[in-house]
Amino acid sequence: MSTIIDVAKLAGVSITTVSNVLNGRADRMKKDTLSRVEHAMAELGFQPNRAARQLKTGQAELFGLLVPSLANPSYGMLAREIETAARDSYGYRVIVANTYRDPAQERAFLDDLWSHGARGAIVVSSLADERHFEEPIARGMVVVSYDSLARRDVLPILDYISVDNAVAAGLAMEHLIGLGHRTIAFVTASGWTFSRAEKRRGFLEAARKHGVEAVVVEGATASTYSDAEMAELGQALTGAVIAHPARPTAAVTINDMMAIGLIAGLREAGLSAPQDMSVIGFDALSLGAYIAPALTTIRTPLTAMAQTMVDRIVTRLDAPGTPLGEFRFAPELLIRGSTNAAPQDHGAARSRMPKQT
Amino acid sequence: MSTIIDVAKLAGVSITTVSNVLNGRADRMKKDTLSRVEHAMAELGFQPNRAARQLKTGQAELFGLLVPSLANPSYGMLAREIETAARDSYGYRVIVANTYRDPAQERAFLDDLWSHGARGAIVVSSLADERHFEEPIARGMVVVSYDSLARRDVLPILDYISVDNAVAAGLAMEHLIGLGHRTIAFVTASGWTFSRAEKRRGFLEAARKHGVEAVVVEGATASTYSDAEMAELGQALTGAVIAHPARPTAAVTINDMMAIGLIAGLREAGLSAPQDMSVIGFDALSLGAYIAPALTTIRTPLTAMAQTMVDRIVTRLDAPGTPLGEFRFAPELLIRGSTNAAPQDHGAARSRMPKQT
Repeated sequence: MSTIIDVAKLAGVSITTVSNVLNGRADRMKKDTLSRVEHAMAELGFQPNRAARQLKTGQAELFGLLVPSLANPSYGMLAREIETAARDSYGYRVIVANTYRDPAQERAFLDDLWSHGARGAIVVSSLADERHFEEPIARGMVVVSYDSLARRDVLPILDYISVDNAVAAGLAMEHLIGLGHRTIAFVTASGWTFSRAEKRRGFLEAARKHGVEAVVVEGATASTYSDAEMAELGQALTGAVIAHPARPTAAVTINDMMAIGLIAGLREAGLSAPQDMSVIGFDALSLGAYIAPALTTIRTPLTAMAQTMVDRIVTRLDAPGTPLGEFRFAPELLIRGSTNAAPQDHGAARSRMPKQT
Repeated sequence: MSTIIDVAKLAGVSITTVSNVLNGRADRMKKDTLSRVEHAMAELGFQPNRAARQLKTGQAELFGLLVPSLANPSYGMLAREIETAARDSYGYRVIVANTYRDPAQERAFLDDLWSHGARGAIVVSSLADERHFEEPIARGMVVVSYDSLARRDVLPILDYISVDNAVAAGLAMEHLIGLGHRTIAFVTASGWTFSRAEKRRGFLEAARKHGVEAVVVEGATASTYSDAEMAELGQALTGAVIAHPARPTAAVTINDMMAIGLIAGLREAGLSAPQDMSVIGFDALSLGAYIAPALTTIRTPLTAMAQTMVDRIVTRLDAPGTPLGEFRFAPELLIRGSTNAAPQDHGAARSRMPKQT
């Protein structure tokens, strides 16, 4: 692979001259000089590449995407949408990293992006503490946050794109309450994130508004390594849900993986969804339509959200003075097989007892 | 963002001098000159970045990963493993693209990688025709292919890393034959890929060896847009499997998504897996353990395969003369709930009839 240094040597010109040719500043150049540079490029098979442009502008047509883990299919779906929007709308390519919600890994990734000439990043982090983004942003990095909200107590330094998670939890609750459920569990993972907090808030507000009993069941994932452990957590929490003295007949979970785990846990306990307990997921994974029971879930407008995030990155890179924004998208309830009418006796524990006929 | 041109101007030196400082060739430089360059860098907040190194060596510490679609969780899992190995072993970052098995998109991605200074790519393409990789490889691109085999009729220009798909299909067949199944379907998607062809070959060889009847059921996906449509295809093919005159009692499918779709199709037809039909997937998606029935499937050693692919990229970039290789990994059968003993009457059609007691 030849470099501009090789081209300059072969053409017998300075590196600046080659750089001028590469950057379209050859108008006041002698014809002979331009011709020598062009011949040297051709002879060496030199590709006037983006590295040269990048060295001049400091920017590559690249940005970063930071997700907890691509092994989690909801982030895989999101990554697909983001990469497609970046390429189709702007010809940008995407550097991706799995950072497991670890601030040190997130920061290291932003630094690497910078050194590769990428000046934008979409971060799927949901950590409440965003201080590790401050220095890269101060340096000129454009950062867009997915599934978080701006904090009211600090000046925002990012754009925030999210689905309205509180509204989503409200939709789930109204569906269950309409089906006659009067005691409903919210099943969640420990570890504070904006989206979990918003879902919990929407759940509790809906319960209060409609006068139904709310039960929160929470547990820590075995490892923070990957969100793939969500199904395992859902399964592990099933005992706490069905043994709860308030006898919930329905459960709202924070994602489809956890809902699937919870349904597996019910099955292990000799119960089934939705007969013994209605279960609602979040994310609308494509597989949720094919399993039994098919998952009732919340669909977020991923394509539109991905497009907005990519638009923000490129717009703000082009026009650094662009004001920051918070963009909220409306969720949609997908009603499928994992929810149905509450048992007549209003108690899952009762329905688990042998039938007396 | 300042460039080496700005640094050279402020320091009153040539670009070559700045480049020498950046590349550790300052030993014969006057102390005063070095000091002026360093001060100019500090004043401008210049980051001696990889773009400069890249312009010299023509290489960035980046490589590409080309997958049909990250929305397919099996590629999400693979992408996670590859990105982790690249970063942990070599400090490389990964540019990712969804290319939907489209040669034009695959080629465009390799060209973009080149222009970003990336000189390596892992391609998950499985297209039989690899001619669109020839020019980038001739130019100096190091390409590693996942889940394909070297063709015997052309000189290989890639490394090939795959699980032994024929052996995997054999493991699936031996399991089913051991359970008493005597007529077994192979359910696959149209569109030739090495891995599908190898699975089919292993399936047919095992059937021949053990003297069981083999039925191949094949269909086209509604769209080639995403492998997420595999579940839909599995569901659509169920009719052809259960109506087949040979009455298969078990099915080997080409991936877990298709197996899940097939099981959904059985359910729609009033049948169930494994009672009416045993079903085996491929890929060992983590969700497969939590659904009902839990999927019997083939696990591939993804972590080891990802590490090998990354090692090959970096090794061949460092030592261009390294001979190409074909690396095959052993699959493992994971026995779970979607397979069981064949119905006594050896016919799925019979077992669908009302029981006479």
